[in-house]
Amino acid sequence: MNKNIEILLAEDNEDEIILIEEALEDAYIKNVTLNYVKNGIETMKYLKQNVPYEDKQRPDLLLLDLNMPQMNGHEVLEQIKNNASLKTLPVIVLSNSQNENDIEKSYENHANCYITKPSDYNAFKEVLKLIEEHWLRTAKLPKNKLLNSKSLR
Amino acid sequence: MNKNIEILLAEDNEDEIILIEEALEDAYIKNVTLNYVKNGIETMKYLKQNVPYEDKQRPDLLLLDLNMPQMNGHEVLEQIKNNASLKTLPVIVLSNSQNENDIEKSYENHANCYITKPSDYNAFKEVLKLIEEHWLRTAKLPKNKLLNSKSLR
Repeated sequence: MNKNIEILLAEDNEDEIILIEEALEDAYIKNVTLNYVKNGIETMKYLKQNVPYEDKQRPDLLLLDLNMPQMNGHEVLEQIKNNASLKTLPVIVLSNSQNENDIEKSYENHANCYITKPSDYNAFKEVLKLIEEHWLRTAKLPKNKLLNSKSLR
Repeated sequence: MNKNIEILLAEDNEDEIILIEEALEDAYIKNVTLNYVKNGIETMKYLKQNVPYEDKQRPDLLLLDLNMPQMNGHEVLEQIKNNASLKTLPVIVLSNSQNENDIEKSYENHANCYITKPSDYNAFKEVLKLIEEHWLRTAKLPKNKLLNSKSLR
């Protein structure tokens, strides 16, 4: 993996953002830039390169929490997967919920996969390593296209 | 992983079916039943429990080749992901193609992920182990429901 990979993390809990940042570093996951947004509305603005995210590129992968203020993860997922420009973005739901309805609904809305957050820090690191190995090193991802040219904004 | 997991392999190439069967065994992947179908039409019959697959249960995971006779993988994917009963089934495209259009089109049709078949046998085993670790041991899959009750068939 030589090219730099961008992961967007949609997560409202500051402690979990820090935990994921630390776990990525601890797991020696290199060449990955982690950006984050704290609610569903910001997630959609970021992906659509709306103000203040005009200069952001489309991420290679979205890690999506379900329980977020303003617009929750299910709504974000529905919007992404029904948007012709965004639908190919791989979305991994990363949630505390083990609720079967959340799992079912996520796959119905075309989540690429659903992973529950382990409560143990070392297990969390292992999960992030597995996501790296599977999604960033092995699976072929869709080509990361700039969504909008400046003239189309 | 105590419960038995069923993988359906949609693959027209007999050599590759044998290779995957052997690699699963060699990789000590247990509790997995591998069934296979050899073209797209048989895949859809299997998933819809049409004759002669009335007694088959819905698989937990579909490994889908793209290049198959009668109905290719792209068409199968489109049918699955537009079918209310089938759309939650996780579909991993497992193809020889590294063509960007195949990758892009698969994600557009809501493939859960796209993995190219490694040409080296040991690398193939590693990929199957990774699929097991990620999809069967870590990710939460949608509950495996029987699609039809006998009365609805």
